[in-house]
Amino acid sequence: LLIDGEPRDRVPGRDRGLHYGDGLFETLAVEDGRPCLWGRHMARLAEGCRRLGIPVPDTAGLAAEAEREIGGAARGVLKILVTRGRGGRGYAPPREPRPMRLMELSPGPGHPPSWRTRGVRVRRCGMRLSRNPALAGIKHLNRLEQVLARAEWTDPDIAEGLMLDTGDQVIEGTMTNLFLVDGEGIHTPDLSRCGVAGTMRALVMEAAREQGIPVSERPLCWSELERARGLFLTNAVIGIWPVRELDGRALDPQVVPGPLIDAVRERGFIP
Amino acid sequence: LLIDGEPRDRVPGRDRGLHYGDGLFETLAVEDGRPCLWGRHMARLAEGCRRLGIPVPDTAGLAAEAEREIGGAARGVLKILVTRGRGGRGYAPPREPRPMRLMELSPGPGHPPSWRTRGVRVRRCGMRLSRNPALAGIKHLNRLEQVLARAEWTDPDIAEGLMLDTGDQVIEGTMTNLFLVDGEGIHTPDLSRCGVAGTMRALVMEAAREQGIPVSERPLCWSELERARGLFLTNAVIGIWPVRELDGRALDPQVVPGPLIDAVRERGFIP
Repeated sequence: LLIDGEPRDRVPGRDRGLHYGDGLFETLAVEDGRPCLWGRHMARLAEGCRRLGIPVPDTAGLAAEAEREIGGAARGVLKILVTRGRGGRGYAPPREPRPMRLMELSPGPGHPPSWRTRGVRVRRCGMRLSRNPALAGIKHLNRLEQVLARAEWTDPDIAEGLMLDTGDQVIEGTMTNLFLVDGEGIHTPDLSRCGVAGTMRALVMEAAREQGIPVSERPLCWSELERARGLFLTNAVIGIWPVRELDGRALDPQVVPGPLIDAVRERGFIP
Repeated sequence: LLIDGEPRDRVPGRDRGLHYGDGLFETLAVEDGRPCLWGRHMARLAEGCRRLGIPVPDTAGLAAEAEREIGGAARGVLKILVTRGRGGRGYAPPREPRPMRLMELSPGPGHPPSWRTRGVRVRRCGMRLSRNPALAGIKHLNRLEQVLARAEWTDPDIAEGLMLDTGDQVIEGTMTNLFLVDGEGIHTPDLSRCGVAGTMRALVMEAAREQGIPVSERPLCWSELERARGLFLTNAVIGIWPVRELDGRALDPQVVPGPLIDAVRERGFIP
């Protein structure tokens, strides 16, 4: 790990990230020794910091630290975690926060390569996402809902679990965003009340629009998933996973528009 | 700090408490060198661990560590934080978690003593609490909503901010539970969808019932607060604070039933 630019394994025990989840993170694919979609991740990190009132870290500094943490590795997953640091009294943030930065390079997630080509098996989670527009979209450190949802299954052949919110809307997977494909185009859940606005989700939406594929961002309910032509999942590490089975029901994994896959590859994301 | 029983200032950088808020905590008053309401705090900690699927720490071991962390101090505030520890892949919890324990003794919070006798000034927060029955009541580490609510004011004479949930119900203060007093008895918000089920809240409710004071636990809306005879706040460190002003409107701070205050003192809580 690189903590505040220093190689060490431990972080301050009074850090507000530990005590309150007072911070956020980014998870990036590393290919050919370079972090993918760097600009998008930095933009989202900055926007999240602004919304939480955490000083935005210097991007050039983060880039230098990322390069150092990646070292000679060609591939992997880079996690960048930023907290509000120490201080303040109880929940009250300090007036002049000194954010803490953590960089961690891990080997790739090791998912079977066939998941990208032949698709994945997916389940529906019982755990719900709570709604709060003030936190919606941010990749913050309050992730107990995802932890409890992911604890619902251990079968290694189930790649992901889909989560509904407390208002019965389908929102996302525990670690991925969701797209539905039908005769009209592609549809992805509205994230104005909960969910993480993924960088790969944004890239896919932009690419679709450029390709003339209609895209909608709107509330989705479970019955629409059951009627869909197909589904696919996205995140910055996996890219795109078609869904081949939802709660035991077979789905056509060949529904992801080819131009979308090409566009994702062309834009500097080549896993 | 005492980390896993060892005196040190830093915690493992891969701890799930930092990465996901995957853990919980207790905050205890220390009086005469002893932690107050120990049994209640341990019971709530155990219940929270069970609900999150975290192995329940050995209470005798925690007691020994608490005694060590308190050392020769007569008074203070003891924080006990327990996380799921390290491990697992992404959000998936490890099969055999090894929880991390952190103990921290701080000096008392330093609130003016008059707040207990003459009452406190309180405001209404704009930040809302999200609803999720799966997490309601637990004093877990996902506290961004409290952090953002507490960041709404800096006036040191405002003791607390009250929070509504996303469904317009009044739930609690950022760090306290709320009671409303009217001609019928005392009322405190239902916490089945959000909020922290405070140990002092439970003690006050029990004491009221024993004293023959009617208690209700039910949904409360803001207009009821505006019509109330009075309000008071509770937590394990402050005990009871009457409210003397709500958003600029004066309230009678002499509404807390005397027998309640006596009962709280008698039950081993004497701040």
